[in-house]
Amino acid sequence: MTNENRGDKKTVKIANPYLMFLGDAPDQLAAKMANGVAKWRPDWCIGQFRLANCKADIGLADMSLEEAAAAGARTLVVGVVNQGGFLPDSWISSLEKALDLGMDVASGLHMRLTDLPGFAAKAKRLGRNLYDARHPTRDFAVGKGKFRTGKRLLTVGTDVSVGKMFTSLSIEAEMKARGMKADFRATGQTGIFIAGDGVSVDAVVADFISGATEWLSPDNDADHWDIIEGQGSLFHASYAGVSLGLLHGSQPDAIVLCHEPTRPHMRGTPHMPMPGLQRCIDANIAAARLINVDTRCIGVSLNTSAFSQSEAERLLQETEEALGLPCVDAFRQGAGRLVDALG
Amino acid sequence: MTNENRGDKKTVKIANPYLMFLGDAPDQLAAKMANGVAKWRPDWCIGQFRLANCKADIGLADMSLEEAAAAGARTLVVGVVNQGGFLPDSWISSLEKALDLGMDVASGLHMRLTDLPGFAAKAKRLGRNLYDARHPTRDFAVGKGKFRTGKRLLTVGTDVSVGKMFTSLSIEAEMKARGMKADFRATGQTGIFIAGDGVSVDAVVADFISGATEWLSPDNDADHWDIIEGQGSLFHASYAGVSLGLLHGSQPDAIVLCHEPTRPHMRGTPHMPMPGLQRCIDANIAAARLINVDTRCIGVSLNTSAFSQSEAERLLQETEEALGLPCVDAFRQGAGRLVDALG
Repeated sequence: MTNENRGDKKTVKIANPYLMFLGDAPDQLAAKMANGVAKWRPDWCIGQFRLANCKADIGLADMSLEEAAAAGARTLVVGVVNQGGFLPDSWISSLEKALDLGMDVASGLHMRLTDLPGFAAKAKRLGRNLYDARHPTRDFAVGKGKFRTGKRLLTVGTDVSVGKMFTSLSIEAEMKARGMKADFRATGQTGIFIAGDGVSVDAVVADFISGATEWLSPDNDADHWDIIEGQGSLFHASYAGVSLGLLHGSQPDAIVLCHEPTRPHMRGTPHMPMPGLQRCIDANIAAARLINVDTRCIGVSLNTSAFSQSEAERLLQETEEALGLPCVDAFRQGAGRLVDALG
Repeated sequence: MTNENRGDKKTVKIANPYLMFLGDAPDQLAAKMANGVAKWRPDWCIGQFRLANCKADIGLADMSLEEAAAAGARTLVVGVVNQGGFLPDSWISSLEKALDLGMDVASGLHMRLTDLPGFAAKAKRLGRNLYDARHPTRDFAVGKGKFRTGKRLLTVGTDVSVGKMFTSLSIEAEMKARGMKADFRATGQTGIFIAGDGVSVDAVVADFISGATEWLSPDNDADHWDIIEGQGSLFHASYAGVSLGLLHGSQPDAIVLCHEPTRPHMRGTPHMPMPGLQRCIDANIAAARLINVDTRCIGVSLNTSAFSQSEAERLLQETEEALGLPCVDAFRQGAGRLVDALG
């Protein structure tokens, strides 16, 4: 693990390289977390470790725990969803063996590693670190809303699961390719494995949503960009409070609106219609300007995976004309035009 | 303790009568919680128990623990702020003695009763209940944003600590005096002692702010009003996420805006100006209508305690004319005109 100063506090990064634990995932979707990490941080992922009956494959070399340890793996990352909320014995023995072999263990499960009987004690005895990405363990201050140095971009959404993490990472990659100073700031468990640290903002105590986001994105160089992963939507009946605290804590200079054009209604609430894109931009800008009067929306990111290439191009073009903003599919086209729009 | 069905879940009410524990409070302000409970629920408060050097007095009969137990006290309520975040031995021995004498113990402290060494075990052994009002212990579902039967009024604010609880309780009292069906729904620790139950929404996990509020205010008779205590402000850099989730979870038919006219800036953030009242009403109405398109602001409640009677009357009159809404000081005038405005 490495330490980095973040304001007056120290943060601990998940050590890489990672061995990605896929367990006995019943399908590819169950390993979505691991898949995201392998896509965005291939250099950090030394291999995948799969149990018998594992139906997922994220395209890394298969390794046993022993092989991975010998190859230098420093953290076993549980990047898979377990079924029914409990861990089978075969998983637990694998996690214990990883500790024995010298690895830390990081998990994106709801269930805490530290709740496994004897597991935390064993890790402590061996000098290993445990990291429950869904569960913030540090204390945060309440948000102050004070100006911080450096630049910030936040991805916001019409809904949950519309490509905010993907868009954020595409923007970070494009900025780094251009030699700009940029850091992806993770606010969910997959993003935390990709960044090596971060905070699951939806899991902090409600009073500290904006404060946790301020901690996540401290003062920085004037030409440095934090690319902050958004969560939820101001228009989601379940999660809007998280989205608003994140918006305030981010004090973004720029927002990018993310949208999935085929979504029939807000995810999880079938009686709630999707908001229009302009309405969603306006609401986010109005709320953001409480903290940063210069917040502006610099573009839109559509997930057009359900469309053919020509259909996607037409949809992007139409949306761009309707809103008067650059509109891209970061997967098909990269984030170049979004970064251009910051200039 | 009594049980009440709340949807499919059971909630446990703090048993009364209460004995109010004031400890060795250094001044009257330290006993603000207990003072609020004694004001609004005098029939539930059998007496006050004060240690040597206690400088607070909430106007109840002084009683020893033994006298209170003999008089029928069922819960010792720690309605006082301790200094430095730790409990002196003299407090702990008092709390333990209360258990021995047959009382439950309820606390509004940040520190959990269940974190006191051996305290929870002792309570369990004796069959007593502990209630940490600042710390929700149940699990909540995420908010659904579905229409619930019954009527709801939420107090909202320009800032924190501007009279939302006071106004809510004044409205409940007025409704009950008129024979209307009404229940105050508590969202902070003082309110929880006053209601006998509730949820500290600022202490729930961020994902569940609106869900906890939905739990707090379940389906009810068509002519029943839940009067829901607001928290924070959409314009507060620290807490707006809590306020938005509470607004969505409340799905209010009516909101009342609360304001303290002498406040020079947002409390705790000296660089943040107070929002204008109309702007604050508009923002709350716009956000509330995501869930309930019929939300309307029915009036304004000003805390005019800093003004003379004639100054207060002029200020209330001016505000009423500027906003075109009934504007009252619930302390000076009661909430009659606010309840009239619902008609």
